[in-house]
Amino acid sequence: MAMLMRSLLPRVGILSPPVGCPRLIRCLSSAAVCPPARAAVYHQHGAPDHVLQLVEVEGRELLEGEVCVKMLAAPINPSDINRIEGVYPMRPPVPAVGGTEGVGVVVSVAPGVSKLKVNDWVIPSHPHIGTWRTYIAKEESAWCLVAKDVPEKYAATVSVNPCTALRMLQDIVDLKPGASVVQNGATSMVGQCVIQLARLNDLQTINLIRDRPDLDSVKERLKALGADYVLTEEELGSIDKKTLAGRAQAKLGLNCVGGSAATAVMKLLGEGGVMVTYGGMAKKPITLSTGPLIFKDLRLQGFWLGKWKSNHSDEEFSTMVNYLLRLVRDGKLQYAMDEVQFSDFDTALQKALGQQGSALKQVLIFN
Amino acid sequence: MAMLMRSLLPRVGILSPPVGCPRLIRCLSSAAVCPPARAAVYHQHGAPDHVLQLVEVEGRELLEGEVCVKMLAAPINPSDINRIEGVYPMRPPVPAVGGTEGVGVVVSVAPGVSKLKVNDWVIPSHPHIGTWRTYIAKEESAWCLVAKDVPEKYAATVSVNPCTALRMLQDIVDLKPGASVVQNGATSMVGQCVIQLARLNDLQTINLIRDRPDLDSVKERLKALGADYVLTEEELGSIDKKTLAGRAQAKLGLNCVGGSAATAVMKLLGEGGVMVTYGGMAKKPITLSTGPLIFKDLRLQGFWLGKWKSNHSDEEFSTMVNYLLRLVRDGKLQYAMDEVQFSDFDTALQKALGQQGSALKQVLIFN
Repeated sequence: MAMLMRSLLPRVGILSPPVGCPRLIRCLSSAAVCPPARAAVYHQHGAPDHVLQLVEVEGRELLEGEVCVKMLAAPINPSDINRIEGVYPMRPPVPAVGGTEGVGVVVSVAPGVSKLKVNDWVIPSHPHIGTWRTYIAKEESAWCLVAKDVPEKYAATVSVNPCTALRMLQDIVDLKPGASVVQNGATSMVGQCVIQLARLNDLQTINLIRDRPDLDSVKERLKALGADYVLTEEELGSIDKKTLAGRAQAKLGLNCVGGSAATAVMKLLGEGGVMVTYGGMAKKPITLSTGPLIFKDLRLQGFWLGKWKSNHSDEEFSTMVNYLLRLVRDGKLQYAMDEVQFSDFDTALQKALGQQGSALKQVLIFN
Repeated sequence: MAMLMRSLLPRVGILSPPVGCPRLIRCLSSAAVCPPARAAVYHQHGAPDHVLQLVEVEGRELLEGEVCVKMLAAPINPSDINRIEGVYPMRPPVPAVGGTEGVGVVVSVAPGVSKLKVNDWVIPSHPHIGTWRTYIAKEESAWCLVAKDVPEKYAATVSVNPCTALRMLQDIVDLKPGASVVQNGATSMVGQCVIQLARLNDLQTINLIRDRPDLDSVKERLKALGADYVLTEEELGSIDKKTLAGRAQAKLGLNCVGGSAATAVMKLLGEGGVMVTYGGMAKKPITLSTGPLIFKDLRLQGFWLGKWKSNHSDEEFSTMVNYLLRLVRDGKLQYAMDEVQFSDFDTALQKALGQQGSALKQVLIFN
């Protein structure tokens, strides 16, 4: 990926300096400003490692009601990749800055800003900000205040995957203590959160994972998080269901894979169980026979945090993320991440794209 | 199928005469009795045309609280076939009399019967009675009183397919006037009822049917019932969705086929639409991609009238069937059936099994 100076790029709206602020140095003396930034920008949809460019963006004076946020950390999520590829249903018009999630610190505020102040930590309230850049100027309402007593990488990653895990456990079916939840893709960040949030609520989890060379250590890691059962699809096929001691009657199933891994989840659902699909990593369809729908009363639905957000207030979103961050602070919620300097964006992107084998969640660190 | 006299069969509980009534003629003089009956019995599960036998069953004295019902008409439903084959989840122990639905007239009542009287029309409240026989002695609570002002064949067939159609339209999603419903298998009895009940509630229907030699006349017949659109899967694939004038945003989809016909139903669902599966005639699984589940909020569930009945009172069942029979009486609900004499059971069974090509619903008539 080439690193270009701003001047080499066509002048486009999102990157333009505001009118009346031709020289940053002049603005600094008279009004709140946002400094020049480095940003990962794409001008057209396509393979992220082809269309993304690290560019310099000029600074600009803040408009009334805006704050300037210096980004601290931002992850590369699969949905960010899909937005850049142009295959995600909700995506900003191009040109755009990549990234939707992250945490930053407020470094300056314009007149008219009432709630946020310098040194506050904030995360985007909505996914159209473009977080893969060092500084962002945006209206106050675009930000959600978060606690500062957690590692930056957690504040940067709380608003998508942990929220998805929490909502799916809370909103779909009434899970009484002792009830079982079955999920595939259990090593994913959502999967790890599901295990821990379920354990906090006295729920059992049956966790399906892909076979892999380090299978035993992965199983141990998930069990250390609170998983009751961890098994591969192959193991599920060969064991007597009674080995699961009646827990093969899950009320809730979570599917982020599709294909045979979704079938495996459905097999472990009990009468009236619901399988919620929130991803399709295998890029294979779900296949189900009609019998269990009719006679076992199985149900299938999807979950999309974007839709949840459009139906809930910013206050409800804030309450949720700060609840999750308190769990992080108290050592009740953790997940593995890989911190990478923003200057080493290419490497982080390659890892996120799976070009270097299975990799942890990549979290960009801005210094 | 062999026709055997009772004496050739092993003595089994359901067919045994009551103790203390060795000679029918003696009982007649002292208490209410049920006459000898002819019944279609199976002693083991298997292909219906192999395991069913028409046998003579001795009459017996009624026990306290029982009524004797002379059957008038009883259909052969696909679920009856599946029960005999042993593949239906809820089925009586063998030996058993075939059939679950039908209408009869009360011909005698024992002491302790409080609501039913001679000449009342009744249908079974629950599906374990075995309706393919000329006389049935059963406790009063096993029967549901129905109106006599409709043709026998409608009273005989109201309690499964029309009820399924009504419940699916009423209980799954909130359908405001003008909303659209899409269904496959639209020529089925449920399908025909859906068209008419939808029309009565100002709902639009998009009806998918199999291609067939008499396609145009079938389309005209369904449109005469109130169908807005009738098309084959092939036609659906070739037309511009706009031709459906925005109605390809159905809130409810009904699937009794599976396979590609289920995919076709899902294609015509709008945001948040629900596909309800109540049959799997194609014996092929449903295949769905993860995207529409997540981003279009599609939902899949099943419907089984047996489960509805187990959750509702006999009074609610009675209210429902008599509502539907009033629609029949008023000319608002009709469907094609083929009446066959019970003495010609073999032919009716062959037709119901599809051994004589596509056939109408077979309704046995008892004389």
